[in-house]
Amino acid sequence: MAPKYAPSLRARLPPVAFLLQTTFIVIFTFCVEIEDSRNVKENVFIYSYAKFQDIHVMVFLGFGFLATFLVRYGFSSSAFNVLVAAMAVQWATILNGILMSKHFGDSKIHINLKSLVDAELCAASALVAMGAINGKTNPVQLLIFTLIEVTGFVLNQWLIQTLFKTPIQMHWLYSTTLINIFGGLFGLMTTRVLFRSKMEPKHEKEKFGRTSGLFAMFGTLFLWMFWPSLNSALESNIRRSEKSISVLCNTYLSLAVSAVTAMAFSVLSSSKGKMNLVHIQSSMLAGGIAVGGTVTLAPAPWVAMTIGFCASLLSTLGFRYLKGHMLFAFDCHDTNGVLFVHAVPGILGWFAQLILCLASISQITV
Amino acid sequence: MAPKYAPSLRARLPPVAFLLQTTFIVIFTFCVEIEDSRNVKENVFIYSYAKFQDIHVMVFLGFGFLATFLVRYGFSSSAFNVLVAAMAVQWATILNGILMSKHFGDSKIHINLKSLVDAELCAASALVAMGAINGKTNPVQLLIFTLIEVTGFVLNQWLIQTLFKTPIQMHWLYSTTLINIFGGLFGLMTTRVLFRSKMEPKHEKEKFGRTSGLFAMFGTLFLWMFWPSLNSALESNIRRSEKSISVLCNTYLSLAVSAVTAMAFSVLSSSKGKMNLVHIQSSMLAGGIAVGGTVTLAPAPWVAMTIGFCASLLSTLGFRYLKGHMLFAFDCHDTNGVLFVHAVPGILGWFAQLILCLASISQITV
Amino acid sequence: MAPKYAPSLRARLPPVAFLLQTTFIVIFTFCVEIEDSRNVKENVFIYSYAKFQDIHVMVFLGFGFLATFLVRYGFSSSAFNVLVAAMAVQWATILNGILMSKHFGDSKIHINLKSLVDAELCAASALVAMGAINGKTNPVQLLIFTLIEVTGFVLNQWLIQTLFKTPIQMHWLYSTTLINIFGGLFGLMTTRVLFRSKMEPKHEKEKFGRTSGLFAMFGTLFLWMFWPSLNSALESNIRRSEKSISVLCNTYLSLAVSAVTAMAFSVLSSSKGKMNLVHIQSSMLAGGIAVGGTVTLAPAPWVAMTIGFCASLLSTLGFRYLKGHMLFAFDCHDTNGVLFVHAVPGILGWFAQLILCLASISQITV
Repeated sequence: MAPKYAPSLRARLPPVAFLLQTTFIVIFTFCVEIEDSRNVKENVFIYSYAKFQDIHVMVFLGFGFLATFLVRYGFSSSAFNVLVAAMAVQWATILNGILMSKHFGDSKIHINLKSLVDAELCAASALVAMGAINGKTNPVQLLIFTLIEVTGFVLNQWLIQTLFKTPIQMHWLYSTTLINIFGGLFGLMTTRVLFRSKMEPKHEKEKFGRTSGLFAMFGTLFLWMFWPSLNSALESNIRRSEKSISVLCNTYLSLAVSAVTAMAFSVLSSSKGKMNLVHIQSSMLAGGIAVGGTVTLAPAPWVAMTIGFCASLLSTLGFRYLKGHMLFAFDCHDTNGVLFVHAVPGILGWFAQLILCLASISQITV
Repeated sequence: MAPKYAPSLRARLPPVAFLLQTTFIVIFTFCVEIEDSRNVKENVFIYSYAKFQDIHVMVFLGFGFLATFLVRYGFSSSAFNVLVAAMAVQWATILNGILMSKHFGDSKIHINLKSLVDAELCAASALVAMGAINGKTNPVQLLIFTLIEVTGFVLNQWLIQTLFKTPIQMHWLYSTTLINIFGGLFGLMTTRVLFRSKMEPKHEKEKFGRTSGLFAMFGTLFLWMFWPSLNSALESNIRRSEKSISVLCNTYLSLAVSAVTAMAFSVLSSSKGKMNLVHIQSSMLAGGIAVGGTVTLAPAPWVAMTIGFCASLLSTLGFRYLKGHMLFAFDCHDTNGVLFVHAVPGILGWFAQLILCLASISQITV
Repeated sequence: MAPKYAPSLRARLPPVAFLLQTTFIVIFTFCVEIEDSRNVKENVFIYSYAKFQDIHVMVFLGFGFLATFLVRYGFSSSAFNVLVAAMAVQWATILNGILMSKHFGDSKIHINLKSLVDAELCAASALVAMGAINGKTNPVQLLIFTLIEVTGFVLNQWLIQTLFKTPIQMHWLYSTTLINIFGGLFGLMTTRVLFRSKMEPKHEKEKFGRTSGLFAMFGTLFLWMFWPSLNSALESNIRRSEKSISVLCNTYLSLAVSAVTAMAFSVLSSSKGKMNLVHIQSSMLAGGIAVGGTVTLAPAPWVAMTIGFCASLLSTLGFRYLKGHMLFAFDCHDTNGVLFVHAVPGILGWFAQLILCLASISQITV
C-alpha cells in the first residue's frame, strides 16, 4: 500500500493538515471562550471529569487499537486514529457550539468539560464510520471523510432536537445508538462509493496474527470496560442528573451477557471449535450499543440482559454469514464489519426503546 | 492442545454457556431490581464509581493479561478470562444478594454499584484460583470450576460474617487477603485433583517470549497500579467510611517496596544476573495482598513497608526454590504459582494483622 | 549488552537495592506519619484521588512503555522504569517532607495523597532525565542517577520557593515545565559526562520494530491522554483551587493541535512520505509540556492552541535536524532525544508565560 500513494501523500497530507489546523486556530481565536468555572457546581465537575477521562481513553486508545488486528495496518491504524480524532474533536467543538448552544445573546461559544465530552462523542461516530474504509484510504481522504461525517452527525442531531420538541420519552431518537447507527451507515455508504473506483478481490490486509490480536483485544477491552461511562454521559445530557446508577448497572450487565454470548457463538460457528478474535471483538460491544437506546427508560436488569443477548447474537450471525454476501450483493467491502458491529445493534436498541415506550404507555392508559 | 479437545469443545461450550446465561437471565427476571438512586448520597456515588472502574479494569484487563507471558496461551488467556469473569460476576451478584443482603422483608435483591464491586471481588478470587490450572483445562471446565469457586467463596464469607459477630478488630478474618488465600488454596486443591488424571512431564506452554512478556508486564502493572483501590473498596465495606487515605497510602508504599524487593531478588537468584519476568510478576503484587489484611487497623507507614518487604521476599523465595518441589512432593502443578503469589502473602497479611491486634490490645490494657 | 555487565550486576544491584530500601524503611519509621483523614474535605479527597490515579498511570506505565520502541530494550525499559520510579517516589516523599512542609512544630512528616502526587511529579522528572541515558547504563547506575536527580530537583524547587516569595504571577518559575526542563537538561548533562568514558559509534539498540512500536504508542497515548491531569495537579498546588476547567480545556486543546502538527510534519520530513513513530512520540507531548507553563494565567483557548502548534513544530524540527549534530558538536548522545522532546518545549512554555505576563501587566497599566 505504502509504495502506491507514498510520494503523493508526502505532498498532500502536510499542507492539508496545516491548513485545516490553522483555520481551526483562527476560528477559535474569534469565536471560542472557556466558561467561567465559578458557575460550576463542584460535584458536577468532579463526576464529569471522571466520565470525560473514560471517554477520552475510549476514543483515542480504544478505537485506535480496535483495528490493530490487521497485521500490516496496526501502527498506521493507531496513528491515523489519533490524527483523525484530534481534528474531529476541534471541528465538533466549533459546530456543536454554533448549533447546539442555547444562549445566542453572546456571540462567543463557551466551552467546558461537557463540550469536550460532546465533541468526543461526535469523534467516536466518525471513528465508527472509519471502520468500514480502514486500509482502503490514505490519511488525506480520512481527514476529509471525517470532517464531512462530523458535519453530518451534528446537523442530524440538531435537526432531531429542533423538529421533535416532545416529552422525554421521545428522546429515544437522540441517544447513544445514534452514534453507532449514523456512523455505521455513513461508513457503509462511503465504502460502496469507493468500491466502484478500484477492485481489490484479495484483501491481504485483513489477515491477522497472534500478537496483533492481543493488541486488538486490548483496544476492545478498553471500549468494553468504559462503555457504561459513555452511556451515562449521554443520559446526563438528556436528564441533567448525575446519579445514573440504573444506566451504569444496566449497561454493565448487558455487556457481560453479550461477551458470554459472543464467545459461545464464536466457538459454535468455527469448524475447529476455536474462538475467533474478530467475532469476539465485533459482538462483545453489541450489548452496550443496543442498551444505549434505553438509557432514559431505566428498564429492569433482565430487560437490559435480554437486549444484550439478542444484540450479540444478531451481530455475530450477521458478521459470520452475511458479511461475505454484502460484498457480492451490494458491492460493499466493509473492513471491520461496521454494519453488523455498530449499525445493527444500534437499530435493535431503537426497536427495544420503541417497544418499552409502547409498553409503558399502555400500562398508564390501562 | 487445541487439536485434542477442539471437536468436543465445539459441541460442549456453546450449549453450556447458552444454558447458564439463559438461567441467569431468568433468575434476574424474578429476583433482581436496581436500587432507587434517590436514596444514594451523591459523594458516595461518585467515589464508588471511581473505585468501581479501577476494579473493573483490574478484573477484566489485569488478570486477563497476567498470564499472557505463556506464548502459546496469550490470546486464549485473555479471552477465557473475560468469559469466566463475566459469568462469575452475574453468579456472584445473585449469591451475594441472597446471602449477604440485610433486608429480607422484600423478596427482591436490590443491586447498586456496590453490589457490582462486591461481585467483581468474588470474580477476582475465581481468577486467582484459575491461575493454578491455566493451560490444563478447557473453557467448559473453567466455567464450571468458576461457578463452584464463587459459590464456595460467598458461602465462606457468609459463614465468617454469621459466626463471628464480634467487634471491628475481629474483622481481620474478612478482608482482602481472603480473596487471595481462598482463591489460591482452591486453585491448588483443584490442580492436585486434576494432576492424577493425566501426567504431563513437559509443560511447553510455560515458555515465554519477549513480546508476550511485555503484554504480561502490562497486565501486572494495571493490577499493581490499581491495587490501592481494591484494598480501599474492601475497607469501605467494613468501616462504611469513604475517606480511606491511610489505606491508600499504606497500600501504595507497601507495593513500592515490594516491587523494589522483587526486582533485586530476581537479579540475585538468576545465574546470569538478569531480571526474570515471572519472578517480578509474582512478587510485585505480594505487598498489596499482604497489607490488605491490615486495612482496618491503619498502621504506621513503616509497618506497611515492612510487611511489603517480607511478603515480597517470601513470595520470591517460595516461587524460586519451592515451586519445583511442590510438583514432586505433592503432585501439584501450579502453572502461575498461585500458592506463593497469592496464598502465602495473604496468610502473611493475616499474621501481621494478628500481631498488630495483639499489640494494640496489650497497649490498651497496659 | 547483558553479557558485558551481567556478572557484576548480580553482585551489585541486590545489595544496593536492599540497602537503599532498608534505609528508606528506617527513615519512614522515625519520621513519617499519615495525616489524620478527619481534617480532609471529602470533595478535595475524591478529586485528588482521581488525579492521583491518572498521574500514577503516567509515571509507572506511560514513561515505562515510552522507550519500548527500542526492540532490544523493551522489557528492561519497563522493568527498570518501575524499579527507578518506586525508589524515586520514596526518596522524594522524604525530601519533600523535610524541605517543603510548612509546620516545623511537629518533628514528623505528615503524608497524604497530595504528598504522593508531589513525589510522583519528582519521579516523573527523574524518568524524563533517564530518557537521555537509556540503554547506556545498568540498573545500579540508574538507581544512583535517580537519587541524585530527585535531590537536585527538590532542592531546585525549594530554592525557587524560598528566594522568590513574590505574587502569584512569579510562580511561573515553579511550574510543570520545570519537571521537563530540569529533567531534560540533567539527563543531557549526564549523557555528555558518560560519553567520554566509552565510544559507541553504532547504536544498534536504537532500532525499532513494528510490534515494539505499538507498545511505545501505548505508553505515549497514556501520557498524552492523562497530561491534562498532570497540569491540573500542578495548578492546584499553586492556586489551591480544585475547579481547574480552564487548565484542563487548554491542555486538551494544545495536545490535540500538537498531535496533528507532529503527524503532518513527520510525513513531510520523511522521504518516503511515511509517519515515523519516533517523531510522533517526541512531538505529540510537546503541546502539553509547553502549555504547562501558562496554567496559572488561564489564557484563551487559541493561545493554548498556538503554543501547542509552535512547541510541536520546534520539537519535531529539533529532533529531525539537530539531534544528529548534537552527537558530533557537543559529544552528547541523547537516546530518546529528551532535549527536543522535553527541555525545548518546556523553555518555550516559560517564554510564553513571560510574554503573557508582560501583556497582562501592560493591559493593567494602560
